[in-house]
Amino acid sequence: MANDKPRRPRAETPKGFRDYFGAEVTERKAMLDAIAGVYHRYGFDPLETSAVETVEALGKFLPDVDRPNEGVFAWQEDEADWLALRYDLTAPLARVAAQYRNDLPSPYRRYAMGPVWRNEKPGPGRFRQFYQCDADTVGSGSVAADAEICAMLADALEVVGIPRGDYVVKVNNRKVLNGVMEVAGLAGDDKEAERGIVLRAIDKIDRLGPEGVRALLGEGRKDDSGDFTKGAGLSLSQQEAIMRFATATKQIDTRLIEMSFIAGDANPELRQRATTAFFADDALLRSIAPTDEQGGALRNRVAVSVLSEIVSTSKVGQEGISELETIASLLAAQGYGPDRIVIDPGVVRGLGYYTGPVYEAELTFQITDEKGRPRNFGSVAGGGRYDGLVKRFTGQDVPATGVSIGVDRLLAALHAKGRSRADTAGPVVVTVMDRDRMADYMAMVGDLRQAGIRAEVYLGNPKNFGNQLKYADKRQSPIAIIQGGNEAAEGKVILKDLILGAKIAESATLEEWKDRPAQVEVPRADLVAAVRKMLGQ
Amino acid sequence: MANDKPRRPRAETPKGFRDYFGAEVTERKAMLDAIAGVYHRYGFDPLETSAVETVEALGKFLPDVDRPNEGVFAWQEDEADWLALRYDLTAPLARVAAQYRNDLPSPYRRYAMGPVWRNEKPGPGRFRQFYQCDADTVGSGSVAADAEICAMLADALEVVGIPRGDYVVKVNNRKVLNGVMEVAGLAGDDKEAERGIVLRAIDKIDRLGPEGVRALLGEGRKDDSGDFTKGAGLSLSQQEAIMRFATATKQIDTRLIEMSFIAGDANPELRQRATTAFFADDALLRSIAPTDEQGGALRNRVAVSVLSEIVSTSKVGQEGISELETIASLLAAQGYGPDRIVIDPGVVRGLGYYTGPVYEAELTFQITDEKGRPRNFGSVAGGGRYDGLVKRFTGQDVPATGVSIGVDRLLAALHAKGRSRADTAGPVVVTVMDRDRMADYMAMVGDLRQAGIRAEVYLGNPKNFGNQLKYADKRQSPIAIIQGGNEAAEGKVILKDLILGAKIAESATLEEWKDRPAQVEVPRADLVAAVRKMLGQ
Repeated sequence: MANDKPRRPRAETPKGFRDYFGAEVTERKAMLDAIAGVYHRYGFDPLETSAVETVEALGKFLPDVDRPNEGVFAWQEDEADWLALRYDLTAPLARVAAQYRNDLPSPYRRYAMGPVWRNEKPGPGRFRQFYQCDADTVGSGSVAADAEICAMLADALEVVGIPRGDYVVKVNNRKVLNGVMEVAGLAGDDKEAERGIVLRAIDKIDRLGPEGVRALLGEGRKDDSGDFTKGAGLSLSQQEAIMRFATATKQIDTRLIEMSFIAGDANPELRQRATTAFFADDALLRSIAPTDEQGGALRNRVAVSVLSEIVSTSKVGQEGISELETIASLLAAQGYGPDRIVIDPGVVRGLGYYTGPVYEAELTFQITDEKGRPRNFGSVAGGGRYDGLVKRFTGQDVPATGVSIGVDRLLAALHAKGRSRADTAGPVVVTVMDRDRMADYMAMVGDLRQAGIRAEVYLGNPKNFGNQLKYADKRQSPIAIIQGGNEAAEGKVILKDLILGAKIAESATLEEWKDRPAQVEVPRADLVAAVRKMLGQ
Repeated sequence: MANDKPRRPRAETPKGFRDYFGAEVTERKAMLDAIAGVYHRYGFDPLETSAVETVEALGKFLPDVDRPNEGVFAWQEDEADWLALRYDLTAPLARVAAQYRNDLPSPYRRYAMGPVWRNEKPGPGRFRQFYQCDADTVGSGSVAADAEICAMLADALEVVGIPRGDYVVKVNNRKVLNGVMEVAGLAGDDKEAERGIVLRAIDKIDRLGPEGVRALLGEGRKDDSGDFTKGAGLSLSQQEAIMRFATATKQIDTRLIEMSFIAGDANPELRQRATTAFFADDALLRSIAPTDEQGGALRNRVAVSVLSEIVSTSKVGQEGISELETIASLLAAQGYGPDRIVIDPGVVRGLGYYTGPVYEAELTFQITDEKGRPRNFGSVAGGGRYDGLVKRFTGQDVPATGVSIGVDRLLAALHAKGRSRADTAGPVVVTVMDRDRMADYMAMVGDLRQAGIRAEVYLGNPKNFGNQLKYADKRQSPIAIIQGGNEAAEGKVILKDLILGAKIAESATLEEWKDRPAQVEVPRADLVAAVRKMLGQ
């Protein structure tokens, strides 16, 4: 297809794609296997759809992208359908739920894990292929389904190694937001554009601050570079209604701190930090919010009260708040208290298709960012209820709710916590002292493998023995097996403990090597037993 | 992208693609996990490349397709590279081996598992996305590397449930074929086209018979439909040289049967079948070839002798035969005798890029085909040495060898043998008798899940209890939990054994249900213990 290509092709991954080696693969697999175990225990069944869908089936629901059909890899079949790589696992699920609606159990609980593709400008740490790990319940309109997903999300985080107290699942409800829109006079079908601008503006409050959000609600906002973003053009009273919601989290925090002052139950250090935070720092304010079970329950009550005032008489808004209370009580009945799952109006979730409860898992421990500053790790999973996606295909209402775990971010979190797990033990390396006795060396690895021990024979050019040891070192081999002519004649083999010897391996000659104390000579017949012993098995 | 699309999108997988549900996913995963365990034990490290490669890097090596760049899904980046979905796992490995040549251990043993894509006309059972499961050693020119792959392939088949005796790994050597070409006067660089026709013709001997192959070696062949395929235009003596090789397997079989007659050691039934087969049926002839270790060793000796005569004085041909003997002896030293791994000149392997040993795993047990006739299951894996693929990128010789397991065919074989494994147990279903006590039901599933028991609460509309039982049936649930108002008041729950009750579940009313003997009532506090007992745990 390219006529002018050079004689030798470039050996390069395409821009924005990457390769995963060894432990990078097994660590992710171990994590996904553990999560799949939780999903299975909750009664979810696996589903694997193909990477390719028709553009028509995928629809225009690419998250975080305003324009339709932007951001997907697509091509046209010979004078036929446009095909595309899936950009998430939800769109294929909606297609499956419609296609097999007469055969699937209802409700249908399914999980899916696999790569998705985004045709976006790649950046540092931003790839065009990445893993998602989703669980969804299709066909249940009950908020019990949402509550179940939140509990399962908490279990999934714990099973991969995020301890209780290091995460919180935050729940909000799109209906509360709809109530706010109603109060602000933005409920009509003709106001969809304004609602979109408002949603995106609220979602940016952490980055732009209240003034930035207010500007976007009004005429618009000029950013630092001088670029102008057109606003929603709301009246002052409309802006006020939205801003009350946009700052709800801060109101809740403030009220909790006031209460703790009144009750006098905060310890002096906390009071000091609270006083500072109250006047200065939103992030700090949030970080001192109570996270134990009792404090969480109080926080939930305060959140309900603040939200009730904000949505005022809106029916849908009050319904949303009532659903949030139900979710919290269903979860508490299962032992998932507000130390793990809290009502948080700060959860907006960018996707336009959400229709009810929305949720997000946030890791609360601090990491050090690239500039050496401590910061909260942040969100690793999110989801919510989307009752309209299947209807696209069938015309019938099919309620659905589900979560997507950001696999790479969660893996990064496990690395940050030193909790990632994978069998990365290198193989026992049988060295080749005598090229003509390859059959003997292969018999040794054969015996070791039969015994379940990871082992290989050196298959490079055996001439330079130092290269064989360098190889064993690079493979993180725990033991090298050596059998020269003398040993062979005596029916012996030498075992070298490379974990002890790793430091000098690079420069050692064979003679030095043989002299080291971590070396034992055993009868060939005892090879497997001796290796087991040295491995501590 | 499509302006004239209907209001509702079609809920359909694109043509040639399919979805995998439940056990279809877990069975494949269990099989791949078991194989990965074997690969790991042999010292192979996982590698996961992205699905997308540049067309330039993929090259023109699509197997079984004569024209370059046919058969891939490809698209052009905005005024930049052409990208494509990988069509196998070997081309990406060659790219990786070149790209990271300074960082990877050498030799580099890697395994890879994942989907590949072929833009081919879909047919029944023929999909455009399917799994491959490869293991390759890059950087070793030693035939010990080929032998190791063959042993590992045997282990992989056994670990997934193909017992010894039900498979054989057949080994041949492309160098033997090159020797045959030399003898036939087809060795020159200017004879590449002829060699291609010859290779493809030999590969079709099972389908076309010797006459069909001979026609393709000569002027050409008209098939049953009247279509004419142009031949290689070889002279009669050239054809003769090729045909001697193309029929080598039959010569070996024939000689073995002659030997058994002379030795008089065949039992009467075998002699009768051999006599019939000798005159009538190639497949039958092949099926009575000895498969025990002693018979295999004899077969290997006969194969070497037959091939030696065929390649005559060709140096490369004799080298190929000598490599085959080395492979057989290296394998025998590890305990992989000729009952499992045999020399078989019938293995040609279509791919043009092979340069040395080629191998194929064949399942030898019989299955019944769609027309009710018994036939051998056939090939489930194949591979070989390809010393030129990495050189494409670097210009330097990098020897490599590896195998690809046909995941779907192997899964089909396990199904045929009743050996596929997956945890397909349905969940315990907690039914909803009283919508207002959802928190109680969720607490029950919470307790069960905490105890590691797969469980769910019914999340559909609870009004019709029969629907709940139908749901439990569809989920293959072993136990339904029931708690109505009375039971709740008494602090009791009812457990129904659904495995016993499956047959009447469809029509049962709640009353009938309660009367069945497979039902027990236990205190709520004993729920987990009672479920465990009923599950036989």
